[in-house]
Amino acid sequence: MWPGKVTSPRLAQQLQFVAEADRLKTVLRQTRLIDGSRRENSAEHSWHLALMAVVLAEYAPVGTDLARVLEMLVLHDMIEIEAGDTFAYDAGAYRDKEAREQAAATRTFGLLPDDLNRRLRALWEEFEAGLTDEARFANALDRLQPLLLNFRSGGGTWTRHNISREQVLRRMQPIEQAAPELWPFVLGLVNEACKQGFLTD
Amino acid sequence: MWPGKVTSPRLAQQLQFVAEADRLKTVLRQTRLIDGSRRENSAEHSWHLALMAVVLAEYAPVGTDLARVLEMLVLHDMIEIEAGDTFAYDAGAYRDKEAREQAAATRTFGLLPDDLNRRLRALWEEFEAGLTDEARFANALDRLQPLLLNFRSGGGTWTRHNISREQVLRRMQPIEQAAPELWPFVLGLVNEACKQGFLTD
Repeated sequence: MWPGKVTSPRLAQQLQFVAEADRLKTVLRQTRLIDGSRRENSAEHSWHLALMAVVLAEYAPVGTDLARVLEMLVLHDMIEIEAGDTFAYDAGAYRDKEAREQAAATRTFGLLPDDLNRRLRALWEEFEAGLTDEARFANALDRLQPLLLNFRSGGGTWTRHNISREQVLRRMQPIEQAAPELWPFVLGLVNEACKQGFLTD
Repeated sequence: MWPGKVTSPRLAQQLQFVAEADRLKTVLRQTRLIDGSRRENSAEHSWHLALMAVVLAEYAPVGTDLARVLEMLVLHDMIEIEAGDTFAYDAGAYRDKEAREQAAATRTFGLLPDDLNRRLRALWEEFEAGLTDEARFANALDRLQPLLLNFRSGGGTWTRHNISREQVLRRMQPIEQAAPELWPFVLGLVNEACKQGFLTD
């Protein structure tokens, strides 16, 4: 894998995880880029969320630790290398999503040395549980980003899958609590999307 | 752009920057993914570096602020939306790289509200200057990542452009100071790459 004699076993495991991460660039999401040219992959999506965290940090609850938000966002989709991306409006796939993702987490984070495995998996579990300010804010950004992309690409996934205003608003709900200042914008965008025929009413 | 009456001018500017960022997903680098399927784009590359910062943080100098490293890495290629990616071994393109990138920074970060423009541009300038521990470590990761990808994809860019051991070692030099514990690994990998015929000797 790597030249053995100059690589400590610990570093070799870390770099194995880094190399494995490259595969996230080939996991495709339903959302398309704003220019409509192709589907977004989960690696560039994760980057976009991290950028949003930097630019929109002021809308997180006071005291939110941005470093932890960034770490969570960078890691949150790593399990998709094994488990694949689950489309937000696919109720069927959501039934076994948690079991698939837990198994994937065991395998993927398990490539790391024990201490890092524990620490990074805990960050992912925290993101999934959504109980801390950091996890809630990270989650809110994960909901907001496809909203922006779908709106700016003229309906995108919504139109193709015949999604309704109600479905989107339910999906966006975490934003209301985690970043209340962004909520009027979300409502306005969803209204506008209905008016333009991107969402069914 | 966005529904006017529910979006403050400040939020509209922030979201304009976020939407503009989507274009970084279409800026292609010379490096190919490990599976060789296609060229890497600068957005997913930036994510990969941020992930490396999380996983390899222990090799940064004591006291390095990981949050700043992550912010820098997330932002460091934003200027490529305007300026394009400059291939590391293209001496010609490097001649006007700084001027092109400064103009691009003025335009791209200029989409943001003034205070954020100043703060994020300063982070980018700090990365470019490479004088702080955070910038040096971020830079080291930016050198290390294509090394890993080229090695694991069987020579990648090196073979195609007939790159020599000396060119790569010069390019990797920042790693020696910023993350000395990683340097023996880099030397070993470059040796192995020569042995396997990925680099000329």
